[in-house]
Amino acid sequence: MTHPASRRSRKAGLPPGSLVHIGKRQRESPRITVARYNAETFSEQVVTDVALACQRDAGTVTWVNVDGLHDTKILDELGRGFGLHPLVIEDILNSDQRPKVEDHGDYLYIVLRLLSWDTSASGISFEQLSLVLGANFVLSFQEGAHDDLVTVRQRLANNAARVRSQSADYLAYVLLDTIVDNYFLVLEKFDDQAELLETELVTDPKQPTLVALHRVRRDVVFLLRAIRPLREVVGRMERAEVSLFQPATRPYLRDVYDHVLHAIDTVETQRELAAGMLEIYLTSVTNRSNEVIRVLTLIATIFLPITFITSWYGMNFRHMPELDWPWAYPVLIVITLGSIGGMAIFFKRRKWL
Amino acid sequence: MTHPASRRSRKAGLPPGSLVHIGKRQRESPRITVARYNAETFSEQVVTDVALACQRDAGTVTWVNVDGLHDTKILDELGRGFGLHPLVIEDILNSDQRPKVEDHGDYLYIVLRLLSWDTSASGISFEQLSLVLGANFVLSFQEGAHDDLVTVRQRLANNAARVRSQSADYLAYVLLDTIVDNYFLVLEKFDDQAELLETELVTDPKQPTLVALHRVRRDVVFLLRAIRPLREVVGRMERAEVSLFQPATRPYLRDVYDHVLHAIDTVETQRELAAGMLEIYLTSVTNRSNEVIRVLTLIATIFLPITFITSWYGMNFRHMPELDWPWAYPVLIVITLGSIGGMAIFFKRRKWL
Amino acid sequence: MTHPASRRSRKAGLPPGSLVHIGKRQRESPRITVARYNAETFSEQVVTDVALACQRDAGTVTWVNVDGLHDTKILDELGRGFGLHPLVIEDILNSDQRPKVEDHGDYLYIVLRLLSWDTSASGISFEQLSLVLGANFVLSFQEGAHDDLVTVRQRLANNAARVRSQSADYLAYVLLDTIVDNYFLVLEKFDDQAELLETELVTDPKQPTLVALHRVRRDVVFLLRAIRPLREVVGRMERAEVSLFQPATRPYLRDVYDHVLHAIDTVETQRELAAGMLEIYLTSVTNRSNEVIRVLTLIATIFLPITFITSWYGMNFRHMPELDWPWAYPVLIVITLGSIGGMAIFFKRRKWL
Amino acid sequence: MTHPASRRSRKAGLPPGSLVHIGKRQRESPRITVARYNAETFSEQVVTDVALACQRDAGTVTWVNVDGLHDTKILDELGRGFGLHPLVIEDILNSDQRPKVEDHGDYLYIVLRLLSWDTSASGISFEQLSLVLGANFVLSFQEGAHDDLVTVRQRLANNAARVRSQSADYLAYVLLDTIVDNYFLVLEKFDDQAELLETELVTDPKQPTLVALHRVRRDVVFLLRAIRPLREVVGRMERAEVSLFQPATRPYLRDVYDHVLHAIDTVETQRELAAGMLEIYLTSVTNRSNEVIRVLTLIATIFLPITFITSWYGMNFRHMPELDWPWAYPVLIVITLGSIGGMAIFFKRRKWL
Amino acid sequence: MTHPASRRSRKAGLPPGSLVHIGKRQRESPRITVARYNAETFSEQVVTDVALACQRDAGTVTWVNVDGLHDTKILDELGRGFGLHPLVIEDILNSDQRPKVEDHGDYLYIVLRLLSWDTSASGISFEQLSLVLGANFVLSFQEGAHDDLVTVRQRLANNAARVRSQSADYLAYVLLDTIVDNYFLVLEKFDDQAELLETELVTDPKQPTLVALHRVRRDVVFLLRAIRPLREVVGRMERAEVSLFQPATRPYLRDVYDHVLHAIDTVETQRELAAGMLEIYLTSVTNRSNEVIRVLTLIATIFLPITFITSWYGMNFRHMPELDWPWAYPVLIVITLGSIGGMAIFFKRRKWL
Repeated sequence: MTHPASRRSRKAGLPPGSLVHIGKRQRESPRITVARYNAETFSEQVVTDVALACQRDAGTVTWVNVDGLHDTKILDELGRGFGLHPLVIEDILNSDQRPKVEDHGDYLYIVLRLLSWDTSASGISFEQLSLVLGANFVLSFQEGAHDDLVTVRQRLANNAARVRSQSADYLAYVLLDTIVDNYFLVLEKFDDQAELLETELVTDPKQPTLVALHRVRRDVVFLLRAIRPLREVVGRMERAEVSLFQPATRPYLRDVYDHVLHAIDTVETQRELAAGMLEIYLTSVTNRSNEVIRVLTLIATIFLPITFITSWYGMNFRHMPELDWPWAYPVLIVITLGSIGGMAIFFKRRKWL
Repeated sequence: MTHPASRRSRKAGLPPGSLVHIGKRQRESPRITVARYNAETFSEQVVTDVALACQRDAGTVTWVNVDGLHDTKILDELGRGFGLHPLVIEDILNSDQRPKVEDHGDYLYIVLRLLSWDTSASGISFEQLSLVLGANFVLSFQEGAHDDLVTVRQRLANNAARVRSQSADYLAYVLLDTIVDNYFLVLEKFDDQAELLETELVTDPKQPTLVALHRVRRDVVFLLRAIRPLREVVGRMERAEVSLFQPATRPYLRDVYDHVLHAIDTVETQRELAAGMLEIYLTSVTNRSNEVIRVLTLIATIFLPITFITSWYGMNFRHMPELDWPWAYPVLIVITLGSIGGMAIFFKRRKWL
Repeated sequence: MTHPASRRSRKAGLPPGSLVHIGKRQRESPRITVARYNAETFSEQVVTDVALACQRDAGTVTWVNVDGLHDTKILDELGRGFGLHPLVIEDILNSDQRPKVEDHGDYLYIVLRLLSWDTSASGISFEQLSLVLGANFVLSFQEGAHDDLVTVRQRLANNAARVRSQSADYLAYVLLDTIVDNYFLVLEKFDDQAELLETELVTDPKQPTLVALHRVRRDVVFLLRAIRPLREVVGRMERAEVSLFQPATRPYLRDVYDHVLHAIDTVETQRELAAGMLEIYLTSVTNRSNEVIRVLTLIATIFLPITFITSWYGMNFRHMPELDWPWAYPVLIVITLGSIGGMAIFFKRRKWL
Repeated sequence: MTHPASRRSRKAGLPPGSLVHIGKRQRESPRITVARYNAETFSEQVVTDVALACQRDAGTVTWVNVDGLHDTKILDELGRGFGLHPLVIEDILNSDQRPKVEDHGDYLYIVLRLLSWDTSASGISFEQLSLVLGANFVLSFQEGAHDDLVTVRQRLANNAARVRSQSADYLAYVLLDTIVDNYFLVLEKFDDQAELLETELVTDPKQPTLVALHRVRRDVVFLLRAIRPLREVVGRMERAEVSLFQPATRPYLRDVYDHVLHAIDTVETQRELAAGMLEIYLTSVTNRSNEVIRVLTLIATIFLPITFITSWYGMNFRHMPELDWPWAYPVLIVITLGSIGGMAIFFKRRKWL
Repeated sequence: MTHPASRRSRKAGLPPGSLVHIGKRQRESPRITVARYNAETFSEQVVTDVALACQRDAGTVTWVNVDGLHDTKILDELGRGFGLHPLVIEDILNSDQRPKVEDHGDYLYIVLRLLSWDTSASGISFEQLSLVLGANFVLSFQEGAHDDLVTVRQRLANNAARVRSQSADYLAYVLLDTIVDNYFLVLEKFDDQAELLETELVTDPKQPTLVALHRVRRDVVFLLRAIRPLREVVGRMERAEVSLFQPATRPYLRDVYDHVLHAIDTVETQRELAAGMLEIYLTSVTNRSNEVIRVLTLIATIFLPITFITSWYGMNFRHMPELDWPWAYPVLIVITLGSIGGMAIFFKRRKWL
């Protein structure tokens, strides 16, 4: 489990604007991919010289994607190249931000979480994506390469793609849409696992089920933390409270907004179900306890009294007249059977049998 | 149990506006029913050619109903025929939307959930209904034919029906009203089952009761998800925040709004009651456990000491003077009875007997 | 327990404005009481002809009260006589409305719940009162005759009563005030029973206590449903958001508003207390369980070892040297007592004794 | 425990404005204390003639305090003397109001709760204080004399006191401030007791601890009911939404407002802690249960098998070859010890020992 | 555990504005540190004469820091020197304030909580920091010297520091930023401990784990009380609802605001996780209970019946024919083994083995 707050301590005590990378280094060296396109042309290249990435001209949209954030110098240069506020660069480096959108007048800074399903741990892993949307450029920053962004780039290569004929804000929308659509892929796997757990819980609840259930609830908490702020982020864009998105893009943003609401709904449903599952688990375990105790009581209640009787006639007193009676043994057999029968009736009445 | 998010994955990675059917195919082929009416005339026909469905003229109201959504081509043509935004068609195809109303200026797009009681599973099943209200047309889309819509069509055939002399917005209202009224039918069955469960729970709580209770709580979660957003949907229409509804229809919308509030109230009441029921169940089970343990303790506490005494005089030591005493046996009987009596008093004092 | 939603199904599928009685018929035939008064005169009569009830003149206030709602024809005529909207009549007939106020311009439609204490069931029973306030008339509708309204009519007969010199809105206020004051009578009995329950719970928790507690929680849920919407209803009147109430009546409405707030407070307090009581109950039962198990363990732990020892020397081996030792028996007595003493010390240390 | 709603029933059915005392009579006869002051002069007298109390002149502030509210005639006269609305007098008599402030134009009516620590019951007791603030007078009403008000009067006697040179609204502020400051005194004692309880709960949880815990939770519910509405009451004064408070007094009201927020914070913290404590208690008790059951199981598991063995060789069959074997007894000793050892290993592995 | 309300009682009954120190004295005598700087110069001195601290001139920023608040005289003089309202001084002395910001026109009064990790108690300790921001001065007050403030002073000594060229509001921001950054340091340690606890809880839950868990939940309650009000405090500054912060500083305040939101998120996540942990704990303990009881029942169910049989043939009746049968003993061995086998099958079926 990652502890979001645990990595911030490196920064404490430094003046604001200090560039410190807070996050898990996933690549040897950062990779800068630059895509430039308009309705007619498309080019894509991996650059090492930041200056090349910063070039842009009025007629094309420039999309710079950076995988790997540990090289603060690159970020610093890019920031200056595109005229970003130092605090934005600081935030991009700190890969533990709350999803948000900041309007800096001539560019927007958007923070999102990318979700992916971690099959080995049967849980969800989270990563940060920073987007900067300018008049004719989009910047995207993340720790490791993410398949979704690659897909979008491939779509850009297609001349017929709608996105090619649109401005930069439409590209930003496509990225948002792709990421939010991907949430459902992850949520689907998450739901499948929760359903599996639920079946297990009703049929045969065990300690590992409990641990898995706890894991589900953890993931729900972190999911809500990742997705819930998006309601406000996308909502503000859709209501045109931030600059740079063109009116034609607004219906599309409303669509993303609906998807975000739906994703939140899904996670909150999962949360309510998970809460219910724990209660069912506890009650189920108590139920089983009950059944076991009933058997114990049954056995003890039947055998303790008759064992007492047999023990009684195992005493070695010299003067025990019953021992010598000829009918004593048959009578005792009858008493024993009668005692067992009486107990059985008692249990029937109490509905224990 | 359907997992709402589980079917969306088919769409992930596709460009926005891609038409993909997300839902359960219920019919072999879609069925398009077109009804046209005004105060004087009424006609109803099942068409296969979409172009026929798209015809409309100023003097009549056109209602096109589509059962079965898996044929994306039909939807696409209809969408173009009535001038719908591609995202609306995409939403209609995705039968897992949150209830909502979208104002597109010259038409409204409304998403609702149809409820029906699934007798075999003793639970509620959910289906999506998409409504499009235009100046003089209404479109409705769903997976399978729903009785309620058929009823409305039959009412339309009646020349005296109020709806015949009204414009399209009144038809939309009638559909809304019919669907919300149907909610109460389903909620009634739901309440009946919950009440049955409650009686069972107080008289004889068992593991299946628990599973049924869990089912009730699940259904409540999904019910709230289906009905709660309607408050805003119908509220916005009633407060005239969306176009196309005429002032005369507003009191009727307010009536639907009241019904929606009442349905939410009913479900939330059920939620509180269901939460209480689980607690009662758990406490009830613990109570029974308690009673059983008390009996066990009683039996053990009475018989263990006196069995010890008898066991004592079952020892085979050569030198045990008591064994030869003539009054030993009667004295032992007295001691045993005294021990039982003492225990009984002890239990009385502790209120265990 | 009444299931609010369970009776609505009769209406599903009917066109809006269809008059269907939804409720429990309490009287053989409806009773219409008409009171007319101004500062000087007062008359009261029971009429069977609805037309008589509909007469009113400018100088007097007319109050028509209807007990029994199953005769839809009477309601229909009255509605037309006083110019009410068909949906209002439909709502009056449906005796399962949420408390609300509707401003229809020249009259107000108010729905309230009457509470009464059902001694036989030790619970609260709910009934609906519909009020219509016009320029110089008040209509009231309910299933059965309610004492509170009778009291108000008696007060009207008194020439000195303040209400006599006021207009119709003051009468509406007096009815509201009487009903809300009556809530406190019922809540008082409810509180008394809850307190009784609480004492029982601390001194001697049993299964019936649990059932009674569940009943209390149910009643709280339905109480909140009945009283909470009044905050908005009376609040809107007091803030003059609805027509027909004169400025001079506003301080009185504010007083009713305060009483409503107080009643909600009381019920919510009861809710919190009831929630706490169930937890106390569960913990209390677990506590008792604990005590019982401790006694069981004590007894078993003392007697099982020493019974083993006695059992040991009850074996019939030919070669058991101890059996023949002359001091064996006294030594065994010492060992037995020592074993008991050791256990006692062990229990003391664990604070079980 | 007082039941706030239980005393209101006396009023049900009476016309509005009927003066009925609802509360606990604490004094034989009411006591009216009149203080008059300005920067130069101060006089204080106990009067029996209400007319004397009603005199006031422009240059001085008049403070009339009434202890004991059961004499409705006195209240009625006072009300008329100072021009109060009949509903205000009715509210003053009803010593079970929700804290509120009412702006009547030329005077303010404020209701507050006085808290005091009831040492005998180890709980908090509540009393109502009604304040009326006019242009140059303050009226205060309560059941019993309260020390805090006496303190304020003594402060007034001091010529140098700031309050002497201020107008009536400052006196009202001083009273508010004194009462809210007193809350902290009571909350301090309450916290002390809760802390004591918490220690007890961790070290040695018993049934009385549970009852005390329940008492704490009750008190928290009533505390919140007494203090929470003050946020709005003082907030409205501070934001100048009510008349009569002068701008210079506003910073002081803001200070009171902060104290009120702080008191609410404190009580809500206590609420969260108390909720946690009950859960800890329950878990703690279950924990102890567990330990006791483990000991029981240990003892039974060790002694039942070996007791069986000894019992086996206590049988009296004529043909039991082992009984005559010379090494049978030593072998049996080894078997018994081995059995105990095996159990011990089993328990170690399960971490029960 | 500190009880925030417990120390206020010293003030009850005193007139408003009375200066009383409420808090824990941490130093022998207060220490006043005065720093004065502009872009060119920087001076720092510890003064004992308050008058020296009160000097300021237009061209430099003056920062007066006071460690130790028990000397009310010093505070009084400082307050008069900088023109503070008496109630502000009273609040500074009362080191148990809710975080808040007060706009007094020509200065702002800000209250914050400093957090630090108390290693000895494995918990968080809280301290109050009061900030006063004027046109060209900043005052800071606290009980004990805090490292963070020392760090800021060292940064000021550096000529190149950005803060040197800015006005007083930027210094206030730097202090805020430093304190909020420090929160993450503390939260990191807190998270680490919670994670440790969680591992312990799943592998081996014990009573001390429970106590530690309770401690975590307490800390969360106090953390939220300390951090949550900051949202409003910093939010108001950022939205320019208070004076004195210059437009250029606003982006920085927004950054602090984001950090505050993030800290609240982190604590609330921790709260949800801690709540889940207690439930897991309780269920885990019940699970273990279950397992233990199952073993007990197993043992008892196997041995009680066969012990009864052996006890039966230990009876000393003269006439027990079986005793003399030659095959009796082998037959009994078979019966005993059969009984054990039957039990084993019974348990297998119930899945207890």
